[in-house]
Amino acid sequence: MGEDSGHQQRRLASFQQQINTLLEAHINGQIAQGAGEVAVESKRVLMAGGKRLRPVLMMIAYEVCGGTNQEDIIPLALAFELIHTATLVHDDIYDDAVQRRGVKTIHASKGLAKGVIAGDWLFVQGFGLGGKYEAEIVDLVSEYCSQIAQSEFLQLDRVMDLKTSPEDYLSIVIGKTAGPFAAGCKAAAILANCSIEQQLHMQDFGRELGIAFQLVDDLLDIRGDERMGKPRGADIYEGKMTLPLIHSLTLSHGQRRERLAYLIKNFADNYFDELIELLNASDSLNYTEILINNHIERARESLLTMPQNDATQLMLWLTEFMQHREV
Amino acid sequence: MGEDSGHQQRRLASFQQQINTLLEAHINGQIAQGAGEVAVESKRVLMAGGKRLRPVLMMIAYEVCGGTNQEDIIPLALAFELIHTATLVHDDIYDDAVQRRGVKTIHASKGLAKGVIAGDWLFVQGFGLGGKYEAEIVDLVSEYCSQIAQSEFLQLDRVMDLKTSPEDYLSIVIGKTAGPFAAGCKAAAILANCSIEQQLHMQDFGRELGIAFQLVDDLLDIRGDERMGKPRGADIYEGKMTLPLIHSLTLSHGQRRERLAYLIKNFADNYFDELIELLNASDSLNYTEILINNHIERARESLLTMPQNDATQLMLWLTEFMQHREV
Repeated sequence: MGEDSGHQQRRLASFQQQINTLLEAHINGQIAQGAGEVAVESKRVLMAGGKRLRPVLMMIAYEVCGGTNQEDIIPLALAFELIHTATLVHDDIYDDAVQRRGVKTIHASKGLAKGVIAGDWLFVQGFGLGGKYEAEIVDLVSEYCSQIAQSEFLQLDRVMDLKTSPEDYLSIVIGKTAGPFAAGCKAAAILANCSIEQQLHMQDFGRELGIAFQLVDDLLDIRGDERMGKPRGADIYEGKMTLPLIHSLTLSHGQRRERLAYLIKNFADNYFDELIELLNASDSLNYTEILINNHIERARESLLTMPQNDATQLMLWLTEFMQHREV
Repeated sequence: MGEDSGHQQRRLASFQQQINTLLEAHINGQIAQGAGEVAVESKRVLMAGGKRLRPVLMMIAYEVCGGTNQEDIIPLALAFELIHTATLVHDDIYDDAVQRRGVKTIHASKGLAKGVIAGDWLFVQGFGLGGKYEAEIVDLVSEYCSQIAQSEFLQLDRVMDLKTSPEDYLSIVIGKTAGPFAAGCKAAAILANCSIEQQLHMQDFGRELGIAFQLVDDLLDIRGDERMGKPRGADIYEGKMTLPLIHSLTLSHGQRRERLAYLIKNFADNYFDELIELLNASDSLNYTEILINNHIERARESLLTMPQNDATQLMLWLTEFMQHREV
């Protein structure tokens, strides 16, 4: 990670802290204006943790692009995090997740109706902040949010579908995870008055990093631990076809594939070792790691076409950090 | 209704038709861009009917205010209807309604997850259109949408709460129904470059009309028929405390109140006649009608401070039409 890792880690933490402070101030402002329980519940989940990856990336990207007035990017960065949290609140409803970021989900603690509405409220907060920007940015936001919904529909159709192809997977990931990353980085470039070419480089950077991020998530679901804030194997229990599973199902034949299909369809914690064995037999975890490296490499290449400043150094470090994250 | 009723009815229908055409074109545009099933399902519910009251009011209000370029108000009017439909899609989930506007609800036909996400998608479409406007309008939109969520929380806390007061009721109605009407009419005034004073008159107009609209809805839930697109008594079955119930519970005593409480808590279709008898004994349906008249009167007074043009005549007619609507 280089000898300046501690330094970069502190800078990252300082961005995260800044976002946390601003998010809390925004919600507190709403509560002060009488927003009541919907804001209190939303705040409980919003402030329970989270890596703040989207807003932090946007703030760093803005500096990479030579932007000097943080105020230009901050409301949009907050909007992205609020919208992200809104999607989590709604995801948790239909995944029937009881915990998120270590606290009880809203629908689990206050019922379905309040869960749905609190998610809506968080969306509104995000759109309220994002809507203040010029039409180009508003389009970018509404476009990536529409894509999230479209991709979630595709993903739902693929739940427990053992014939899900790597192409299906990529199209879902691009819409649901990489899309917001790409839109955030492109928006940062627009707000920093970058050239169209640089805007596209930043968009590419965000998309590649976003794909890598999701692939790391897929691996962590199989190898990870409780520090992630959700139990290991959660994707498998929910029938989400992650890339290691898709790859292994594609390569496996005969009895081995049958067994793999059985394990996925009837998953239980005591099948973990056997599942990992089968995934390793098709080299699927290793394959996923190689893909991660490739996408991180492409992200870095896009970044190398940008001005090389302090923020670029931090961003390069962050790509490595995300590649090797364990939570 | 005056002898020009047929003329005004045709003008109203023509506004509705215009909105329908534009809504359909918007969604078709999304489908053409590959939005897929989420757009198809959303369109199915969006285009199944609906009075288009919010957008039509806004378009007429814009003309009342002297606005001459319809293009200025149309995207915002569509945004209001898309957001309204989004709230209906989500409401239907936690009310577990199977039908809306005569067609199957999304969650009933495609499952909870797709219902939640389709509602989100409709929100995004609305915000995408609304976000193109100046900050003042964006604030107005995000403010009324936040208020809807806040009021829905209040309403949920009052489900089957026989102690709900008329003040509780009013605060819920102002946030959930009258708020969007008020915001829409105020936005129309802003976009038509009205004075601050006129903006406030139009806001008052929208709020009063919105309260009257909800009270008429309350009456129709008790007296109405299937033409409303939802079964008569739906509010009572859902435990929603409508004004006639609140008023009657407040005035009734002893055995009569006990019986009323029993009917509300254990409602069934064969209790309808007895319920109406009890509501009439406390004069609660009549009281609701008087309130409707008062709010309509106040709405008309606000309108009389505005320029008196063709659109104002249509709007005055519309207030009467809404007062006496049967569906």
